[in-house]
Amino acid sequence: MATPAPAQTAAMRRAIQLAARGLGHTSPNPVVGCVVLDAAGNVAGEGWHERAGGPHAEVNALREAGERARGGTAFVTLEPCNHTGRTGPCAQALIEAGVARVHYAVPDPNPAATGGSTTLAAAGVEVEGGLLADEAAAGNEAWLTAVLRRRPFVLWKYAATLDGRIAAADGTSRWITSAESRADVHRLRARADAVIVGSGTARADDPHLAARVAGLTDTEVSQPLRVVIDTGAAVVKPGARVLDGTAPTLIAVAEDADTGHLDGIAPIVRLPRSAGGTGVHLPALLDALYERDVRSVLLEGGPTLAGAFLAAHAVDKVVGYLAPVLLGAGPAALGDAGIATIGQALRLEVTDTARLGPDLRITATPARHTLPPLNEEN
Amino acid sequence: MATPAPAQTAAMRRAIQLAARGLGHTSPNPVVGCVVLDAAGNVAGEGWHERAGGPHAEVNALREAGERARGGTAFVTLEPCNHTGRTGPCAQALIEAGVARVHYAVPDPNPAATGGSTTLAAAGVEVEGGLLADEAAAGNEAWLTAVLRRRPFVLWKYAATLDGRIAAADGTSRWITSAESRADVHRLRARADAVIVGSGTARADDPHLAARVAGLTDTEVSQPLRVVIDTGAAVVKPGARVLDGTAPTLIAVAEDADTGHLDGIAPIVRLPRSAGGTGVHLPALLDALYERDVRSVLLEGGPTLAGAFLAAHAVDKVVGYLAPVLLGAGPAALGDAGIATIGQALRLEVTDTARLGPDLRITATPARHTLPPLNEEN
Repeated sequence: MATPAPAQTAAMRRAIQLAARGLGHTSPNPVVGCVVLDAAGNVAGEGWHERAGGPHAEVNALREAGERARGGTAFVTLEPCNHTGRTGPCAQALIEAGVARVHYAVPDPNPAATGGSTTLAAAGVEVEGGLLADEAAAGNEAWLTAVLRRRPFVLWKYAATLDGRIAAADGTSRWITSAESRADVHRLRARADAVIVGSGTARADDPHLAARVAGLTDTEVSQPLRVVIDTGAAVVKPGARVLDGTAPTLIAVAEDADTGHLDGIAPIVRLPRSAGGTGVHLPALLDALYERDVRSVLLEGGPTLAGAFLAAHAVDKVVGYLAPVLLGAGPAALGDAGIATIGQALRLEVTDTARLGPDLRITATPARHTLPPLNEEN
Repeated sequence: MATPAPAQTAAMRRAIQLAARGLGHTSPNPVVGCVVLDAAGNVAGEGWHERAGGPHAEVNALREAGERARGGTAFVTLEPCNHTGRTGPCAQALIEAGVARVHYAVPDPNPAATGGSTTLAAAGVEVEGGLLADEAAAGNEAWLTAVLRRRPFVLWKYAATLDGRIAAADGTSRWITSAESRADVHRLRARADAVIVGSGTARADDPHLAARVAGLTDTEVSQPLRVVIDTGAAVVKPGARVLDGTAPTLIAVAEDADTGHLDGIAPIVRLPRSAGGTGVHLPALLDALYERDVRSVLLEGGPTLAGAFLAAHAVDKVVGYLAPVLLGAGPAALGDAGIATIGQALRLEVTDTARLGPDLRITATPARHTLPPLNEEN
């Protein structure tokens, strides 16, 4: 008996919610959620991919369902995998559990993993893709973007006044945005695999960059890799807060930088210099992070670094915290991005707005970075 | 028989809607709406103050109600006036019509007009104030602010990118915001008594500054007084678009400016120079406009003029049109407002956000300019 459409939607939406619990813990894997209904249409098992190296969502849900999975229907946010990685292939697990139908939301774009639906169908399981595909893809946007671009997904976050300033004329900026906005930034950090700042921010703020979430200790929070781009190896010194051990740290320096003072203190990655020579080559940095299993990056640098990332077309999403404050002077949120005239302006699409205390949070996606639609099924 | 509370609220809300139809037409008077219910609680008459010099809202509603007003209830957005101006006092008209009860929302703050409720009560009419006072006050905010401050209400409007720019590095800016946002600005102009720009905007854009509203001719739209601050009388020349006769125009110049080239072409107001000497004294300009019955001003000048108004504490409301665009270079929306450090930042409160096509419109009120509460009744 096929599950009625409203129950299908409810089960998949629950699976998408379950998937989100894995954000920040699963890279280089995607987040995945799974709900198994028994033959009568009642929830028999739920699961999600909790951490890289752990069981996949389907395996967790099937374990909870036990024998009730037989003749039932599985709802999975991503096409079940067909390959044997650190865990067995999920398509096989679904077949062995006796599941009669599988609904998945988004096809697996990873060449090493595709074919799960073919395997399921060959074993007589009814398989259908595309249910709530847009919602599920949005929940996995970092991983899907990373797979597509072969580099980490980059979210640029800034906090500014209504007139676009990040500090007053004398450089003071504590605080422009509210406590609510700053707590939201910590949630972004906890979901990201890495946080990046440049030497300007490192020098000015000596930032800590770990995620702090109310009610959790620092070790309970999924901490990002803290990345400081210190091209000349001149800014991060022993004693810097970013070296305190709360979270892993990586110092990105130019190939020719003298890093003797950091020996044994922090991991270093040596990168080619950018064309201008003032920074490191950003695509090389993103490659290096991708090799380290980083799939999502929170860019927290200042206006110069943000401009460089935007000029390199390496920003996939923008989150702006706008405080209802006017300054009339002081540094702007965004520096030179290679845009000289209005026709070259970077146009975005606002995907969300929210009030955070007195502030506004604006989420936008660069129009030129639009992903191809993911709900067009095989 | 007293009107039930939900019917009272409905009648007053309708009166507030009627009042809004007068925006842009009634200065130096407020906008006022009135709904008269007959003794059985049915709507007998509606009216609003349509234009300065015309009948007041109560008179219009009573005329429509006729004999049905006798024993009925009048809902008025502002305390009925007690003075005989160009029209007779409304308190007397309500008494003569035999109205048994009057609910008004906001007490009249105008010293020349108060006492209407006392006159009504003395004649045996039940009078109660405060119903939907906040909503009614919001609908009359320009006039109420002007009465309180003895100068026009000033709304500063700007249009900028997410990074706070009003143009690209080369000065190009057509268009940063969308057609929807630009149409909304024309609605603001139609509601304002005057629009002000400075010489920078006049020189750069040769703006027209008339209100254009879709479906209406320029003469059907309530046109604002177009004010150009041309301190040295050096920018506005014969042939300027602002002199085309679509709407009235006023050129504000310094007392010592040579204005021979404008003789017979445009009305001129001569004002003292500001302390710095580069502009005119803004309080003097606002005084001159107030004397010309201007109660609401739309400030459309560039960053320099906006900074000067903010520094003079002469901005009562800010409407920002934010386009989802990034530039990374180019002039900022707001210039020097005398703010040197974060502690001096001008803090506002966001009162509304809206999507206009791809853009966001943010409405905010300077915290330090908060009006005293208007719903505390006598």
